[in-house]
Amino acid sequence: MKRNVLIVGAGGVGHVVAHKCAQNNDVLGDIHIASRTRAKAEAIVDSVHAKGSLKTGGRLLAHGLDALDVERTAALIRETKSAIVINVGSAFLNMSVLSACLATGAAYIDTAIHEDPLKICETPPWYGNYEWKRQAECASAGVTAILGAGFDPGVVNAYARLAQDDYFDRIDSIDIVDINAGDHGRYFATNFDPEINFREFTGQVWSWQKGRWTSNKMFEVGKEWDLPVVGKRTAYLTGHDEIHSLSKNLDVPDVRFWMGFGERYITVFNVLKNLGLLSEQPVRTAEGQEVIPLKVVKAVLPDPSSLAPGYVGKTCIGDVVKGVKDGKAREVFIYNVADHAEAFAEVGSQAISYTAGVPAVAAALLVANGAWDVRKMVNVEELAPKPFLALLDRMGLPTRIKDAEGDRRLRFAEPARETAQADPVPAA
Amino acid sequence: MKRNVLIVGAGGVGHVVAHKCAQNNDVLGDIHIASRTRAKAEAIVDSVHAKGSLKTGGRLLAHGLDALDVERTAALIRETKSAIVINVGSAFLNMSVLSACLATGAAYIDTAIHEDPLKICETPPWYGNYEWKRQAECASAGVTAILGAGFDPGVVNAYARLAQDDYFDRIDSIDIVDINAGDHGRYFATNFDPEINFREFTGQVWSWQKGRWTSNKMFEVGKEWDLPVVGKRTAYLTGHDEIHSLSKNLDVPDVRFWMGFGERYITVFNVLKNLGLLSEQPVRTAEGQEVIPLKVVKAVLPDPSSLAPGYVGKTCIGDVVKGVKDGKAREVFIYNVADHAEAFAEVGSQAISYTAGVPAVAAALLVANGAWDVRKMVNVEELAPKPFLALLDRMGLPTRIKDAEGDRRLRFAEPARETAQADPVPAA
Repeated sequence: MKRNVLIVGAGGVGHVVAHKCAQNNDVLGDIHIASRTRAKAEAIVDSVHAKGSLKTGGRLLAHGLDALDVERTAALIRETKSAIVINVGSAFLNMSVLSACLATGAAYIDTAIHEDPLKICETPPWYGNYEWKRQAECASAGVTAILGAGFDPGVVNAYARLAQDDYFDRIDSIDIVDINAGDHGRYFATNFDPEINFREFTGQVWSWQKGRWTSNKMFEVGKEWDLPVVGKRTAYLTGHDEIHSLSKNLDVPDVRFWMGFGERYITVFNVLKNLGLLSEQPVRTAEGQEVIPLKVVKAVLPDPSSLAPGYVGKTCIGDVVKGVKDGKAREVFIYNVADHAEAFAEVGSQAISYTAGVPAVAAALLVANGAWDVRKMVNVEELAPKPFLALLDRMGLPTRIKDAEGDRRLRFAEPARETAQADPVPAA
Repeated sequence: MKRNVLIVGAGGVGHVVAHKCAQNNDVLGDIHIASRTRAKAEAIVDSVHAKGSLKTGGRLLAHGLDALDVERTAALIRETKSAIVINVGSAFLNMSVLSACLATGAAYIDTAIHEDPLKICETPPWYGNYEWKRQAECASAGVTAILGAGFDPGVVNAYARLAQDDYFDRIDSIDIVDINAGDHGRYFATNFDPEINFREFTGQVWSWQKGRWTSNKMFEVGKEWDLPVVGKRTAYLTGHDEIHSLSKNLDVPDVRFWMGFGERYITVFNVLKNLGLLSEQPVRTAEGQEVIPLKVVKAVLPDPSSLAPGYVGKTCIGDVVKGVKDGKAREVFIYNVADHAEAFAEVGSQAISYTAGVPAVAAALLVANGAWDVRKMVNVEELAPKPFLALLDRMGLPTRIKDAEGDRRLRFAEPARETAQADPVPAA
């Protein structure tokens, strides 16, 4: 039986999710896209038709929805007979969309942690503030909720689990490195909503080091990495969702996240932050107008979706894992390289949106075929990684590994339909 | 007879002008300060009393005035029996204040060129766009109007004239260099109204080279200068008022202005300009609010007057003049060094305001004693420089010269009351 899908959110990631669901609508069935601004969802429907992305005949419909309204969201799930909800809307919507899934029994998949619009950078572990408080609720309702199933978090969590399963007896450190070596040709632009982008970096940087939470300032700790394809790049210790689940689910003393930033980004960020232009607190102009500076910065920056057509270059995202196997020290880098122009040619988006959106659809396919339909709340590293990586290989995000034996593609067999169960992390 | 003075403008320069007029009220008589915001004028009156700046008993009064209203301004000149108006208000007020002087016969002195709020960086010569169109009107009314009598423009024009009179048979180039080596201890701040400050640099840079107007971009042409006290500093070719009169009044092929900027200023300026945050055109936020970005930048920056208490370090401003004397090549640097903390101790302002305000009062004293009461419109280089420099030496802005013979203070005798006349630049 096909499983209808409701996509919540019609931004760059929603655009990719819709195209990839369409490419797999022989499994997923009807596809519904809901956005507060219905016209944005309609534009995506048009784009899917223009690209001819639908694999077989099937319904593809746009809806207007305020997803903070649980009743309306639940009603739309019922009306559309959706079995799976892929939430790629604003980070402020997660809890209300999850509530609608609990009310209807639909499976829930998202790609980023829940945020309270009034709070920046809460205390770790971030999943403990909202998501994990609802684990029991999901389990007793038998509702599958897969948290953070984008690329990072998401695929990098599966890489970490794969390392633990196949490559190490003991892991000492996991360093997730995210490099965008692409060029959009603008003086400055963010790859997604500037407001959300800057919020990620204005608070303190939490990392998991020596088995405890450690705090730094943004751009305080930088390190040069020499990576396949993109070469030598400086990345900075950055707070990120996946640290907050891997630190709990894997027994690893050091889990860090490193984001690559060019000089230009850092300069612009520092100027805006130091002047107070990233503030969410209103200021008053000499003429008496009350204005939130961050909203004005967002207004003058390029619309992120406008960057895709001219975007060139590649991303490289993966896990540098160090530890011991068979009594010997070992280091591996498990990673993917994506190409902005190829992503645009396939689905009309740049690679930042592509890498975030494709994995959420792979997760939906695994829920649909039963492999990941675990009827409780999980993070990606709690699920079997190989069926996921097998699907991603076919769907445009191949996995590679670089270690002492060389640099090579990793291939896994796609699973037949199987009995759903979580795949507990084995004790070391 | 004493000559009452009306000061228009109660910003940082108005503050200095009021203190210096008070220190010379045995000559100048009653002092009136007018501002659109009367409370700002009253604060200056309080400051003059607190410092005990009044030399003799005399009236010192604050007024509320919209100086764009010529009738009201003329009425205030008559009511206060002011013989001299020192206009140190917004650059947008010059023409209306001049009109009020023409209507009443009062002498007019300003320190910066007239600007139209809707136009940035008009075609050269800038004085030709507004001021010089009214030369005939001033001459026929017998009204003295001294344009640009601050430091730069102002004192640097007198330095250029002094060089021509005493040091050269032929001048090949005048490079005016303005270095502020002070430190206000903030991440970033402008020394005067940020809106006016940024307007100076967002247009093209006009300079007078090889006898014609030359255009560059801001920060396109930089040069390291090695100056007394402040040492080696990089300054950039910048558009500035005095080029637009010196190029006409002196027969010199190259007249350039160089402003010193630290790396921080340039970085912040470039980021804000490139992002569009210095724009005077409104943008619309995602929430639908119409906002002028430059007004928001102004709102988040420190109030320039708040910088004075902690300001340390020195300014160095002067003219590098090259040419020929007695058949031999010659180079001189005629300059002043001012100290932020000393200025604050004396009048409660930093040195940027001090160097701009003191010369305007020296000019007023020369009008009062007749030496500069020329009953027509002139730029400073058209007037005898030595009485001006003599007064400045006594009033806190000594003149120094550095040349092949060394680095020394220049002193001139203060003139007795004399018959007023312009001092035409002699033919070379």
